[in-house]
Amino acid sequence: MKKHNFGAGPSILPQVVIDQAALALKNFNNMDLSILEISHRNKNFIAVLEKAQNLALELAGLKDKGYYALFLQGGASTQFLMAPYNFLPIGGTAGYIDTGTWSSAAIKEAKKLGNVNVLASSKENAYKNIPKNVAIPEGLSYVHVTSNNTIYGTQFKEFPKVNCPLLVDTSSDMFSHVVDYSQFDLIYAGAQKNIGASGTTLVLVKQDALGKSGRDIPSMMDYQLQIAKDSLYNTPSVFSIYVSMLNLEWLQNDMGGLKGIEKVNFAKADLLYNELDTNKNFVPYVDKADRSIMNVTFNLADESLKERFDKLCSEAGIWALSGHRSVGGYRASLYNALPLESVQVLVDVMKAL
Amino acid sequence: MKKHNFGAGPSILPQVVIDQAALALKNFNNMDLSILEISHRNKNFIAVLEKAQNLALELAGLKDKGYYALFLQGGASTQFLMAPYNFLPIGGTAGYIDTGTWSSAAIKEAKKLGNVNVLASSKENAYKNIPKNVAIPEGLSYVHVTSNNTIYGTQFKEFPKVNCPLLVDTSSDMFSHVVDYSQFDLIYAGAQKNIGASGTTLVLVKQDALGKSGRDIPSMMDYQLQIAKDSLYNTPSVFSIYVSMLNLEWLQNDMGGLKGIEKVNFAKADLLYNELDTNKNFVPYVDKADRSIMNVTFNLADESLKERFDKLCSEAGIWALSGHRSVGGYRASLYNALPLESVQVLVDVMKAL
Repeated sequence: MKKHNFGAGPSILPQVVIDQAALALKNFNNMDLSILEISHRNKNFIAVLEKAQNLALELAGLKDKGYYALFLQGGASTQFLMAPYNFLPIGGTAGYIDTGTWSSAAIKEAKKLGNVNVLASSKENAYKNIPKNVAIPEGLSYVHVTSNNTIYGTQFKEFPKVNCPLLVDTSSDMFSHVVDYSQFDLIYAGAQKNIGASGTTLVLVKQDALGKSGRDIPSMMDYQLQIAKDSLYNTPSVFSIYVSMLNLEWLQNDMGGLKGIEKVNFAKADLLYNELDTNKNFVPYVDKADRSIMNVTFNLADESLKERFDKLCSEAGIWALSGHRSVGGYRASLYNALPLESVQVLVDVMKAL
Repeated sequence: MKKHNFGAGPSILPQVVIDQAALALKNFNNMDLSILEISHRNKNFIAVLEKAQNLALELAGLKDKGYYALFLQGGASTQFLMAPYNFLPIGGTAGYIDTGTWSSAAIKEAKKLGNVNVLASSKENAYKNIPKNVAIPEGLSYVHVTSNNTIYGTQFKEFPKVNCPLLVDTSSDMFSHVVDYSQFDLIYAGAQKNIGASGTTLVLVKQDALGKSGRDIPSMMDYQLQIAKDSLYNTPSVFSIYVSMLNLEWLQNDMGGLKGIEKVNFAKADLLYNELDTNKNFVPYVDKADRSIMNVTFNLADESLKERFDKLCSEAGIWALSGHRSVGGYRASLYNALPLESVQVLVDVMKAL
């Protein structure tokens, strides 16, 4: 039976991407070698990397706008450290908006390198909302936001206007809908949701914003060095980048880019939130205005329904619907590769409960 | 035609590993999902990670000896930074033996965090040898060595005796032969040669040597935190770890572990070095006593033979025999998965030149 994969990440990928990746694993580009067995400096892989970089910049609308696309290791958690290394001078202060677990983790790392001003937090409200009208003081080295909060299911619908660099962790909603990415100086996202396979992290960085922290940055943490070496300062995560290239190609060519995918993603989210708003057996978790189109969190109105709901889900092939272990309840992740059909199956089960 | 893959890394893998990985890419553990589409906290992946950790400790002979096996992102180049973060107190001095490009890169990163004493270097000899009888001063926080120098083709046959922690980068000869790994407090290796696929790095660390640098270590750089989170502080490079597990399983079960593989590896290296020593058309690059069994470097005695030699190699299916771009000449990498047969093909071509 086909699984309807609502997992929060690593998450569903298009079948065409998986099929192509499996071919390359056996025989890449008719080289009679696996993609795992060739040098990262082989021209066949360089072409993959360049294509992935170009697709990322094109999809983000940042082509020829002074941005550089990197595919680095270490996940967003390493970006929590690289961001202050590169953007926070010694003695400077960074502003962070705290919207959940991952914001908090980013704040923790920045504090190891300098001063952090937590400009706003929704912690007291169990992270059920995105803080609005946040006052931005003068003199910050940068402001950092988490665009989508995978665990709680909130999402920024618009971003604060700041007069310093704006940095964003978009790990769970990158390329999910049309966004003016040019408002950011640094955009980063772990690949394992909308970009590709775990093991690589997409970093889009505005080049003229770099080189101002005055720090002696460790090589692997230095965006300028990574740019100078074109993501090949050392051996990258070759296969993860290949899968990302295939997946971004699918998004661009098969789904019509961000304009195309946002229609599908809005339709999926509308279908599910409408059911949650009208079905008395379910209680959506977050404030209506701040609902994520990628991670839909909810609880049962009556916990005694749990056994029956879980059984119906299982019978329908619904997979990985549990909420994050830190909050419980349910979470339906509706990443790009999840078809509308899967959401319809979930809604049908909800109606049948 | 079958390729004889002498590439320096990412390098040849056993066909059985590639076949199994391709299956898991389509349908992992009969879950009807790709291994790319499941959570890193799913029990099926946890089993993979635990198996890979156990195999690594068993193969290294470090099971139940106080060591922990981590699979981290960022390559050995990130370990160049993690090593001093975790082992070098502020004000302390680390000793490094410089045997080539990667040692130099490790030294560069350590210098960003503290004092470095370069105890010996073979730079003046174009890195053609391994320094011997190195005097180890008192009071060092640790000594760092590079066991095998991929670019130059030298290899430590025995390691200095020190009265402080001994740290080793084994990226290009890990698990190639029997070594007393218990002489080291930290052992690390990028996976893309003898361990598995690029995107993950094996780190074996002696737990009671940790926690002594007194530094406020960034989370992703902190071995103790990575141990506490069992390599899952954030999403790891799932597929790279899976390939590593398969490959270590092959080494353990099909090749008889390090005792088994070293017989094959010694035979391969002997065959090739014997030819280099007796064939007047070739000049081996490094001192006889320090020859690597993994990366065999050599030049033509007469450069005018290059066109013919390259043509013969190509016709025989020999692939990726060029030396590193920084040194030129030729390099035959004889990693674990390369069969003796491939070396015989190369030797036959050398004889026919």
